[in-house]
Order: sequence, then C-alpha cells, then structure tokens
Amino acid sequence: MEINVIKIGGNVIDHPEKSEMFLKLFSKFPGNKILVHGGGVLASRTGKSMGIQPHMVNGRRVTDKETLEVVTMVYAGLINKSLIAKLQAFGQNAIGLTGADGNAILSVKRPVKDIDYGYVGDVKKVNTSLLENLLQQGVTPVFCAITHDKRGQLLNTNADTIASEIATSLAKKHTVNLYFCFDRTGVLMDEKNESSLIPLINEDIYGELMRDNVIHSGMIPKLENAFNALKKGVNHVWLGLPENLLLASKGKNSGTSIETLKYDLY
Amino acid sequence: MEINVIKIGGNVIDHPEKSEMFLKLFSKFPGNKILVHGGGVLASRTGKSMGIQPHMVNGRRVTDKETLEVVTMVYAGLINKSLIAKLQAFGQNAIGLTGADGNAILSVKRPVKDIDYGYVGDVKKVNTSLLENLLQQGVTPVFCAITHDKRGQLLNTNADTIASEIATSLAKKHTVNLYFCFDRTGVLMDEKNESSLIPLINEDIYGELMRDNVIHSGMIPKLENAFNALKKGVNHVWLGLPENLLLASKGKNSGTSIETLKYDLY
Repeated sequence: MEINVIKIGGNVIDHPEKSEMFLKLFSKFPGNKILVHGGGVLASRTGKSMGIQPHMVNGRRVTDKETLEVVTMVYAGLINKSLIAKLQAFGQNAIGLTGADGNAILSVKRPVKDIDYGYVGDVKKVNTSLLENLLQQGVTPVFCAITHDKRGQLLNTNADTIASEIATSLAKKHTVNLYFCFDRTGVLMDEKNESSLIPLINEDIYGELMRDNVIHSGMIPKLENAFNALKKGVNHVWLGLPENLLLASKGKNSGTSIETLKYDLY
Repeated sequence: MEINVIKIGGNVIDHPEKSEMFLKLFSKFPGNKILVHGGGVLASRTGKSMGIQPHMVNGRRVTDKETLEVVTMVYAGLINKSLIAKLQAFGQNAIGLTGADGNAILSVKRPVKDIDYGYVGDVKKVNTSLLENLLQQGVTPVFCAITHDKRGQLLNTNADTIASEIATSLAKKHTVNLYFCFDRTGVLMDEKNESSLIPLINEDIYGELMRDNVIHSGMIPKLENAFNALKKGVNHVWLGLPENLLLASKGKNSGTSIETLKYDLY
C-alpha cells in the first residue's frame, strides 16, 4: 500500500488556531496516513509550572526522572489525546500511541558518552504489522515522542527520528512518503527571504548547494535526515508549511520536495 | 468469546510496589482481558503541584478546564503509559486507550442539574468491534477514565462506570466477567472485620442483607452497580483485593462473587 507519514512540530500544536487548521487539513489528506507530533514548548511550560526547569543540550532535552514524567504527561496525555479528540470530531478515526502501546516502537536508552541525556531513547525496531493492521481498519495512528525499552522503562525520543524510523521501516514493504511540516516555506536559498524557496532537491542539487554554501546550517540535519530516509527506501520527502500539506499531497508546487536522482539505465 | 473486564483503583496504582504486584498477576490472568484503571490520588497531587486544588462533590471530581487538563495528563499520560510499559516488560502485549482513541467510548457531557460537574462524561456507546479486534490479535486494551463526545471535547469519566459499560456492551455477544479490585477483602458482614467476608451474594441474599441492615452504606453503590451489570447480561461480578485476582480467576474462594439466582425452570 501507499502510506504517508506526516510530522508536525510542537510550535503548531501549541497554538489552538494553527493546530485546528492543521488537523482539518490532515483529516482531508487522502490515503493511508500516520501522524507524529512534537510538543516541547508545552512540556517546558508545564514543567516550569511544577518547578521543573528544562535543560537542553545541543537542542535536545536532558531527561531526568521528573522531566520524563512531565513529557509523558504532556506528550502522551494532554497533547496526544486532545489531537485525537479533535480528529474524531473532523471525522478522522485515529488512535494515539506511544512506542509502548502494542510494542509499537522499541528503543534503547542512549548510552552515556560526553553527555548523559538521561531517559532518552534511540529507536531499534518499529512494529510495522501493528501499523498495517490499524491502517487496514481505516484507523490513523498518531504517535507522540515517547518510546519504551520493553523492560518497563519509557524513553523520551525525538519526534523527527520517530517519523523517519516509521517511514523507513514501512518502506521495506510499502511506498512511503514522508512529510515534515515546520515553520518555513521549505528549504530557502536565502534564509531571510521566504520567496527564495528551492522546490526540488536531489543528490546533485544538494551537492551544488552545499558547495556554494547556500544551505543554512539549521537545515543541514533535516536534509541529511531526508536523504538518509530516501537511501533506506522512502519514496519521497517533503519539507514545508503545515498549511501547504494538502497542496503537497496533490503534487502541487509548495514546499521543498526531496527525491533521489532517477538514473536512466539505458 | 469469554472476556474478563478488570477494574483497578487509583490507590493501588499510586503505590509502585502494589502496582507492580498487581500488573504481574494481571499479566498471568488467563484468557481475554481488558483493564480499566483509576488515578485520582495522583491527579490531585499533580494538580496541587501546579496550584490547582481538587474540588470534590459527593465523591466525584468537579472538572473545570484546568482540572480536565490535569486528569488528561495524569490518567492518559503518566499512569496509562507507565502501566503499558510495565505490562510489556511482563510479556503482556497491551495498548493504552481513552474513549477518544479509535472512538472507543462515546460520552455526553453531564447535564447541569443541582451541581455543575463541568467536563464530566456519561457513557453513551462502547465501540465493541475495536475491542474484539484488539483481543483477537492478543492485545489487551487498557483504559483510563477519559472519554470524549466526538465533537472534540475530552470528558472525565468515572472508572467504575467505564468498566461496567464496557462489560455490559460486550455481554450482548460474549460471556463477560467483571472484576472490581479494591481495598477490602470483599463485601463484609462487619466492616471492621476483614474475616467477616460474604463469599456469595445473589438477589435473595442481597435482599436479606439489606433488610438486616448488614450492608455498609459505602458498599451499596458498588452492589447496585454489580446487580445492574448482571441484569444487562454480565455473567459474573467479583469484588476483592487485587492480590486475590488470580485465585478469583480460578474460581477459588476469595473476595465476594455476585451472581444472579439460577432459577430451576422445571
């Protein structure tokens, strides 16, 4: 089957109006789909209201026991269930999952090297048959950024990584498209100019852009992540604004499409 | 099929050791099973840490917008996902659900009469085919006490009621047993003496006990709830200590069994 994996960031989720707009579009997105959501902004705010200060290193949350409780409450409880209730109202049957539910995503606690990130998970295995079964019943899985180690421990896990791991695991048997909704029109030639959008990037174009120093440093991990997914069999990766998601689903010009070079073998 | 619906209270869940003991027993409980859990103690404590005081009327939580956020975080996030991770570690595949997930339990916001309970739901419909499908795949549904109205609103819903509604809905097609684990040995003749257990209650015995004023007032709603479930087709209701759950599953003497009179028709 064809499956669309869509990632939405915590910035959108944190604004009721933006969130509602996105969920309406997501409900209309045709075909099989899986949603992965962040929620870091609300987690930090909720933690602070309980006297727990966020501690970030290299943009990643250091997750001690108390912080794990906060992110589990906010991601798996408040955000995930609010999204599910809204999707049901829009006529989109959906089920909210952590990696522990149905043993959907197995992780290992990140080994301590220079930095001890605490209860943070690196994904080892995605239970694709659970996802296939839900999709076949017309139920959309909605993942928050929590996984488990099957030894009783929940683990905080990067939502971009979860989306990529789900996509590449399903790509072994299915045609998978991966959509990253974020706060930019797409990959830009000039990061201060939203109209300098690069509509298509493949390995050759990426090489040229890197050589010419066009790619903004914050965008490089996203592009590396995208090419990595393509290498592992994902059909197509898209980066853009949540409001352009439906256009993207129709192949219309919007955001940045990332594709592997189609070599002519003859 | 035969299905066992098991309710566990927030008092057990709130003690790591008791909770672990219970989950081990639950994992060993034979056959198809569904877990419903409370969590009021932890919800009150978490709310207080955020400056939100619990407000109870007739033993029920008045649920304003902030309190709904707290119970959604604590019930659907922290407690539900911690239980799921532990069950997975014990080899019991399980999936955590609110009523919004897969549209599992549809409720209506309780109409305001004498008291405005706020965002509290009265159950209207249980999606039995979702539950049958999960059980057929060997996945145990684990419900927290949150439902939805399919109009985008989550609703706080009594866990005893959820357990009864799931049991009576499934009883239309299946043989259903309903187990309430609580902090007493069962129904007692003398509420101060745990050894005054009444092992079996049917309508006749219940009538006699009521006439003799033996039933402690706190127990009456639980017994009424049990007889109501039996009337609606549930096979057998049990009340007792969580540590006696496995004995009860084997029909061994433990707790109080509540059964309808088996009339001899000839």
